Amino acid sequence: MSLATTIRVRYQETDAMGVVYYGNYLSWFEVARTEYMRRLGHTYAQLEVEGFFLPVIEASCRYKKPAHYDDELALYALLSVDGLRFHFDYEVRRVDNGELLAAGVTEHLCVNREGKIDRAASKRLASLVQSESSERYKST
Amino acid sequence: MSLATTIRVRYQETDAMGVVYYGNYLSWFEVARTEYMRRLGHTYAQLEVEGFFLPVIEASCRYKKPAHYDDELALYALLSVDGLRFHFDYEVRRVDNGELLAAGVTEHLCVNREGKIDRAASKRLASLVQSESSERYKST
Amino acid sequence: MSLATTIRVRYQETDAMGVVYYGNYLSWFEVARTEYMRRLGHTYAQLEVEGFFLPVIEASCRYKKPAHYDDELALYALLSVDGLRFHFDYEVRRVDNGELLAAGVTEHLCVNREGKIDRAASKRLASLVQSESSERYKST
Amino acid sequence: MSLATTIRVRYQETDAMGVVYYGNYLSWFEVARTEYMRRLGHTYAQLEVEGFFLPVIEASCRYKKPAHYDDELALYALLSVDGLRFHFDYEVRRVDNGELLAAGVTEHLCVNREGKIDRAASKRLASLVQSESSERYKST
Repeated sequence: MSLATTIRVRYQETDAMGVVYYGNYLSWFEVARTEYMRRLGHTYAQLEVEGFFLPVIEASCRYKKPAHYDDELALYALLSVDGLRFHFDYEVRRVDNGELLAAGVTEHLCVNREGKIDRAASKRLASLVQSESSERYKST
Repeated sequence: MSLATTIRVRYQETDAMGVVYYGNYLSWFEVARTEYMRRLGHTYAQLEVEGFFLPVIEASCRYKKPAHYDDELALYALLSVDGLRFHFDYEVRRVDNGELLAAGVTEHLCVNREGKIDRAASKRLASLVQSESSERYKST
Repeated sequence: MSLATTIRVRYQETDAMGVVYYGNYLSWFEVARTEYMRRLGHTYAQLEVEGFFLPVIEASCRYKKPAHYDDELALYALLSVDGLRFHFDYEVRRVDNGELLAAGVTEHLCVNREGKIDRAASKRLASLVQSESSERYKST
Repeated sequence: MSLATTIRVRYQETDAMGVVYYGNYLSWFEVARTEYMRRLGHTYAQLEVEGFFLPVIEASCRYKKPAHYDDELALYALLSVDGLRFHFDYEVRRVDNGELLAAGVTEHLCVNREGKIDRAASKRLASLVQSESSERYKST
């Protein structure tokens, strides 16, 4: 898994229990995959301009420790491709001590503007991701 | 002002201060104007299908008393039209005792899909709102 | 599973893909369990006043069909207890045709103000839920 | 006004109009004042630990141009004190061309844990803010 970005917990993201509301981790996963793809060399914003979308078909999160307002958090992500399915793993860790707060998964399909699975685009995206991913690892 | 709808405060809407986060009142204003327009006989969803949008150009809210998780709240709204500007007033009150928690305002323009002000549509919408509004008051 | 409540999709809950943002289903699950527990005779708000909290330790959602602005949705829930774990199942369906849009699960522990698992409270809550649940089914 | 921080628009923050939902600007104002106060040398998180809170009593925003997913935005803030009132001004600008997207204001009171206005704390906070503010300007 690689570091996608770091964030600060916003007051808006907390709830009356004094910790981050559980649904907000899914927003952070989205931030993580946005930054992960930017590092791969393809922004998700650009994909949408080209007519491809990656809607979520499944998401899950395990909550280990709560996050609090103003905590600095590191968002980790890893993308793997299985046929037509794009699979992201995530971890949310405290920046100061590396403690794991939550871990999760999202599954995506690659669809066109009409919402139909685009097999050609899926394969192209998969090979793109894989070649760039190996490029990236070669160069480090 | 007329009652648009009632809502229950969601846990997601609270923050670490134990009360509703201040930004969420703007979401409730949107719920209020959606239900207000439905009662006028025109859903905002239908307006969008017809190619009209009412983006917000100004919003404000005064916070009098906090709202808490699971509180039942009444959302009041009133629409007035001033030339090309659509102006909504809102009140958020407790259902159990009528206490005023917040009051606010949003200003909107009527634009087409390209985001340009649509004068014809604005006038049509204004007359629609006004005639139905007076219909409604006649019949009650 | 039993109907917990119905909701309208808020504009705030949609995203640039024109459909409801995937993270918001977790907020709806929370609305569903709030209303489910109210129907069982115990509001979650009251539990918190008594010093018990039900933080989420795991959540997942499968997305079948998108929901759109102003859609009317039915939220279903079912609570089961397994030792110290409180397990909720959920379904989100369209009101007009009953179509299943999403299904999910949350797992909770019962903790006290200090965030420690409260075995006595867990058992009490479990027996409460079970007796009232069977009461409810007897009477229908 | 001084630069508080920069942010990227999250997909979660967009709505079905394809732009950022209007209520989210209030969350960004909160991010701006959090970072502004950190730069003044006092985190808002620390204030809360010390028993002071700055609830919002009034908020407003004028929307000039829409923000889109993945836009990089600069958040500006300025704090001024008027008796017991803490007043923040904000601007949201595009990073790439400096274009003003929105401008707003929030008004706060300084209260203690019981929600009562704390005159002593207000004066102390005011003098703190003013001395550090002038320190900061001297040194630049």
